[in-house]
Amino acid sequence: MKVFVIGAHGNVGRLVVSQLKMAGHEVTAGIRNPEQKSDFEEDGIKTANVDLLGKPESLAVSLDEFDAVVFTAGSGGKTGDDMTLLIDLDGAVKSMQAAEIAGVKRYVMVSAMFAEDRNRWSETIKPYYVAKFYADEWLRYRTNLDYTILEPGALTFDEGTGKINTDGIEGGAIAREDVASAVVASLALPNTIKKTIPMVNGTTGIKDALSAF
Amino acid sequence: MKVFVIGAHGNVGRLVVSQLKMAGHEVTAGIRNPEQKSDFEEDGIKTANVDLLGKPESLAVSLDEFDAVVFTAGSGGKTGDDMTLLIDLDGAVKSMQAAEIAGVKRYVMVSAMFAEDRNRWSETIKPYYVAKFYADEWLRYRTNLDYTILEPGALTFDEGTGKINTDGIEGGAIAREDVASAVVASLALPNTIKKTIPMVNGTTGIKDALSAF
Repeated sequence: MKVFVIGAHGNVGRLVVSQLKMAGHEVTAGIRNPEQKSDFEEDGIKTANVDLLGKPESLAVSLDEFDAVVFTAGSGGKTGDDMTLLIDLDGAVKSMQAAEIAGVKRYVMVSAMFAEDRNRWSETIKPYYVAKFYADEWLRYRTNLDYTILEPGALTFDEGTGKINTDGIEGGAIAREDVASAVVASLALPNTIKKTIPMVNGTTGIKDALSAF
Repeated sequence: MKVFVIGAHGNVGRLVVSQLKMAGHEVTAGIRNPEQKSDFEEDGIKTANVDLLGKPESLAVSLDEFDAVVFTAGSGGKTGDDMTLLIDLDGAVKSMQAAEIAGVKRYVMVSAMFAEDRNRWSETIKPYYVAKFYADEWLRYRTNLDYTILEPGALTFDEGTGKINTDGIEGGAIAREDVASAVVASLALPNTIKKTIPMVNGTTGIKDALSAF
C-alpha cells in the first residue's frame, strides 16, 4: 500500500514510518521542516513537505496517487498555544479535505482516548481535547473517507508489548510503539473502517484485538 | 418572544439586551460573572448565570421555556489564549446542545465576516476564525436548530446608522448598535432561518436588508 504519513517526524510518526516500511508498504514521510529530510533519506524513505498552515489544495497535490493517509501530527498539546487550533484542529481537517481532493479514501487518525467524551477530557490539556474532538467529528460526519480513529491512552516511550486492551472503559498507558503497530495493523483490516478504537496496554495481540473490534 | 442572551454583558450583548427590551421582548441576560447582575437589574432585566465551561445539561436548565437563544459571547479573540477554543468554539457548541436539550428551536449566532471562508480569515486573529468556523459549521450541520448566523465586519463603537449592506463581497466596518438591531430584526423574520448573513455599513435599512436576504 502507498501510505503518506503526516507528522512523520513526531514521536509516534517516526515509529509509524519505520513499521510501515518493515511491513512492506511504500511509505512517504510528510514533514514540516525540510531539515528533517535527512533523518528519513538515510533509511531510504521518501519525504514530502507538509504545510498544515497552508491550503488543502496544496497538500492534495502531495497526496495524489496514495492509497492511505495517516495523521499523527500534533502541536504538542501545550496550553496557551494557538497551534492547538491551527494544527490539531484546522490542520487535521485540511488533511482530510486534501485526502478527499486527491481521491485518497483510507485515512487513519491518531487521536486521544476519550476525545469523543467531553466529560472525560483531562483538565490539564483540555484545549487539546477540544481540538481533537472537533477534528474527529469532522472526520466522522463531514467526510466520506474510510477512516479509522485510534484513541491511545497516555503515550509512553516504553518498548512495545504487542498487546492492547480496546474495551475503552478505563484510561491507561500505552507504548508509542504499540500505537504505531496499531496504525499499521488497521490499514490491513477493513473491519476497522468507520470505527473509533480506544487502546491501552492489555493482554490481546494488536492484530487480534483490532480484527475483533 | 422570550429570549435568552448568552454573553449579555459583552459589548454587543448589552446592546442586544436593551434593544430586545425596547422591542417588547421578554429578555434574560445570561452572564458569566454574578457581579454583572446589578448592571441589568437596575434596568429591570432578569439575569441568569451561564457557565460555558460547564456541562450543556446545566445550561439547558436555564434555557427551559425560552423561545430563542442569542449567542454573542466571545473570548475576545486574543491569540495565545485557550479561551478561544473553550468559549468561542466548545462553549458555543455547548450552548447549541443546551438549546436542543431545552427544546428551544430558534438560535441567533453572532459570528464574524468571512468566518466560513478560510481564504479570507484575518491573519492576526486566525485562531478566533478557526473557532468561529467550527462553531458555525456545527450549528449548520450538526443541529436541527432554526439558526441565523450573522456575520458582521469589523465592529465599531460608532452610533448605529440603521443601514447595512449584506452582499458579502467586501469587508468593512459596522457599528455594534447595528449588529444588535440585526439580531432583534432577525428574530422577527423567519426568512433568515438557516441563513448566514454577512453585514457591513451600507445603504439599506436593516429590516429591509434582512427581509430581502
